[in-house]
Amino acid sequence: MKGLFISFEGPDGSGKTTQIRLLTEHCTQKGLKVLSTREPGGTPISEKIREIILDNRNKEMAPAAEALLYAASRAQLVDQVIKPALQEGTIVLSDRFMDSSIAYQGYGRGLGDGVRVINEFAIQDLQPDLTFFLNVDPAVGKKRVLAEGAPDRMESEAMTFHNKVYQGYLELSRIYQDRYVVIDAARSIEEIAELIRTRVDAYVAERA
Amino acid sequence: MKGLFISFEGPDGSGKTTQIRLLTEHCTQKGLKVLSTREPGGTPISEKIREIILDNRNKEMAPAAEALLYAASRAQLVDQVIKPALQEGTIVLSDRFMDSSIAYQGYGRGLGDGVRVINEFAIQDLQPDLTFFLNVDPAVGKKRVLAEGAPDRMESEAMTFHNKVYQGYLELSRIYQDRYVVIDAARSIEEIAELIRTRVDAYVAERA
Repeated sequence: MKGLFISFEGPDGSGKTTQIRLLTEHCTQKGLKVLSTREPGGTPISEKIREIILDNRNKEMAPAAEALLYAASRAQLVDQVIKPALQEGTIVLSDRFMDSSIAYQGYGRGLGDGVRVINEFAIQDLQPDLTFFLNVDPAVGKKRVLAEGAPDRMESEAMTFHNKVYQGYLELSRIYQDRYVVIDAARSIEEIAELIRTRVDAYVAERA
Repeated sequence: MKGLFISFEGPDGSGKTTQIRLLTEHCTQKGLKVLSTREPGGTPISEKIREIILDNRNKEMAPAAEALLYAASRAQLVDQVIKPALQEGTIVLSDRFMDSSIAYQGYGRGLGDGVRVINEFAIQDLQPDLTFFLNVDPAVGKKRVLAEGAPDRMESEAMTFHNKVYQGYLELSRIYQDRYVVIDAARSIEEIAELIRTRVDAYVAERA
């Protein structure tokens, strides 16, 4: 793969979307090919899957079905968007990737290691080169989400769920130290953006 | 589990739906609680997943995404319908189950053993007690499907695909000899129905 694959992880309300926008601008200004995408979604099929996952009416969704829908959406995104872009040398920024499933379904829903297994089937050996973990207290993150408007099915989950998700992220950041960059999301947007730019620029220079 | 879980497998056009209808009538007449369901589908969430899977416009669907969508639909069906019904002592008849995924995605799409692995995550140890495999030459089955009207995305696949699926079924019938009942689908509808009734009655009597 000639491109660079960067995922952004963290609780809802940690500021991932803003940072992806700022990093996209930075890369574009430097003349680098960059593509940003989001999960679940990012392809027509994946967006249809997203509608099912996040629909507040689907309260009866089984945890295993939820995990498999995320993996299905991801498999389509990897096959149709991420892998072709990386092969063309593009920098791909993804708002969430496999670690979200491990945190939300594996730890949050208590489905355990099976979530990793089904996702390895989905992603076909594609791991992020870098993962920026925006570390925010989940209670603070939830407040930000609620301030922004109508929460979706996942965002509406109780704090006990979001706390388990957060513990999962902390564990992932220890397991995957080689690719994880943990950032204190309480810092200012500009400070965080600068940290991310510096790290990405270094990575790009190293590989050039 | 107090109930009895029976799956019907075979190529498209093998007559599964007809036989499920006839067996349902038979069980009802005997005063047995019976429930029939279909895959993909069988719950509101699973039917939404079914729409994505079978939509002829989704030609770009990645094989891994397809396999994961089937597994997601199945996980929801198992959790919401099949397990509760079995716990109440109901006979559950399913038009396709996990073996379809192994045949269609594992063998047909060439995804191999990973399909079994993601489905074990989906079904949480629930295997059929009996599987009726309606053995029809896939070319004959396809003719029947085309005679019935507009084929869906799976039914529209080329014969090379359907032949691989068929080989997969033959292999499954050898691996799972303990639960497989292979029936020559060239026999008359009534002959097949009688074979199935006899086998189910024997199974129910044995467990009583």
